[in-house]
Amino acid sequence: MLLGKVIGTVWATRKDEQLVGMKFLIVREVDLDGKPQPNFVVAVDSVGAGEGETVLVAQGSSGRQTVLTKDKPVDAVIMAIVDRLDVTE
Amino acid sequence: MLLGKVIGTVWATRKDEQLVGMKFLIVREVDLDGKPQPNFVVAVDSVGAGEGETVLVAQGSSGRQTVLTKDKPVDAVIMAIVDRLDVTE
Amino acid sequence: MLLGKVIGTVWATRKDEQLVGMKFLIVREVDLDGKPQPNFVVAVDSVGAGEGETVLVAQGSSGRQTVLTKDKPVDAVIMAIVDRLDVTE
Amino acid sequence: MLLGKVIGTVWATRKDEQLVGMKFLIVREVDLDGKPQPNFVVAVDSVGAGEGETVLVAQGSSGRQTVLTKDKPVDAVIMAIVDRLDVTE
Amino acid sequence: MLLGKVIGTVWATRKDEQLVGMKFLIVREVDLDGKPQPNFVVAVDSVGAGEGETVLVAQGSSGRQTVLTKDKPVDAVIMAIVDRLDVTE
Repeated sequence: MLLGKVIGTVWATRKDEQLVGMKFLIVREVDLDGKPQPNFVVAVDSVGAGEGETVLVAQGSSGRQTVLTKDKPVDAVIMAIVDRLDVTE
Repeated sequence: MLLGKVIGTVWATRKDEQLVGMKFLIVREVDLDGKPQPNFVVAVDSVGAGEGETVLVAQGSSGRQTVLTKDKPVDAVIMAIVDRLDVTE
Repeated sequence: MLLGKVIGTVWATRKDEQLVGMKFLIVREVDLDGKPQPNFVVAVDSVGAGEGETVLVAQGSSGRQTVLTKDKPVDAVIMAIVDRLDVTE
Repeated sequence: MLLGKVIGTVWATRKDEQLVGMKFLIVREVDLDGKPQPNFVVAVDSVGAGEGETVLVAQGSSGRQTVLTKDKPVDAVIMAIVDRLDVTE
Repeated sequence: MLLGKVIGTVWATRKDEQLVGMKFLIVREVDLDGKPQPNFVVAVDSVGAGEGETVLVAQGSSGRQTVLTKDKPVDAVIMAIVDRLDVTE
């Protein structure tokens, strides 16, 4: 999974009808110190993530394994909100 | 999903017969300010996207989850047209 | 899909038996002006593509959605030969 | 598979309910000399890997082929703990 | 498919039980002149590839389409041994 931070929302009225009601959040990749990285991904929110929260994103077909995203044309889903990292490096 | 802008069309007469009638659009990746990035992808249009519009692209097997692309040999589909981004970064 | 140009062939006698008879072509990625890029991929040909032709390549599980490649251990297939690009950028 | 080293743990209380009880480990990519690389991935542990161990990570839909991760929204799983590398380069 | 050269072996006693008996080889990516590249991947051998041989690797779910790897948690398989490249670039 990718570690990232929710930094915004994408609004899209015209979309595949299977996507109605989904929330598309912008997740910027972060490093282990929480420092923002250049890459970002647009992911469907399945866990009620809010702006500024650190999250895990599952990508590819794994992004379709939540109840919300099953068989839908989405390739990234927020499936966990991160409380804390323990890094021993 | 990848955030991009439609900048052109690919014309291909000789192709897998399952692809007849599909529109192949060129989508250049953009950053959160809409600035064009070096990468681009060729994606099937499933939502009537036009030149210059900002779109979301689902890739991999997720690109085959629209009615139009189901079980077809395509790995990228435009599944939403973006109205607006709210970025709080 | 990836946009590329056919620049060669890979010959492999010893291979998974499901792959017998397939043609493995070397496809170099190109930009929108047709300029060669550093990356290349080896893809199965499903449309009779020839050396020097510009093609589209579907990757991942989408590479297995042609009649020829169904359920086979291949992750890239040429599924269209490009006639022309219209770029409005 | 990706070769990496376990360097930490991600704690997440709020998550997709299918993920309850899973352990999310931080795996930093290493080169063939064991030297840490910039990239890391968060992977579910299916083999009892511990901090500091070198592991193999299967990604994408392959990350869902263990008993623990089957049909779950995870895209990376630790499926082996490395004893030794023999490199002849 | 990725073009690479077998440069070593990964030994792993503790692993998912579905992987018992599989051989994990280290494959370094090569360019069209056979020159080693920085990236490498660990792939299951399904064709009896030996050290120093040039091979093709199928990745992602395509890595699970050989008899040996079917439904197993592996994301890369060697499915062909390369005899020769014809490059006309």
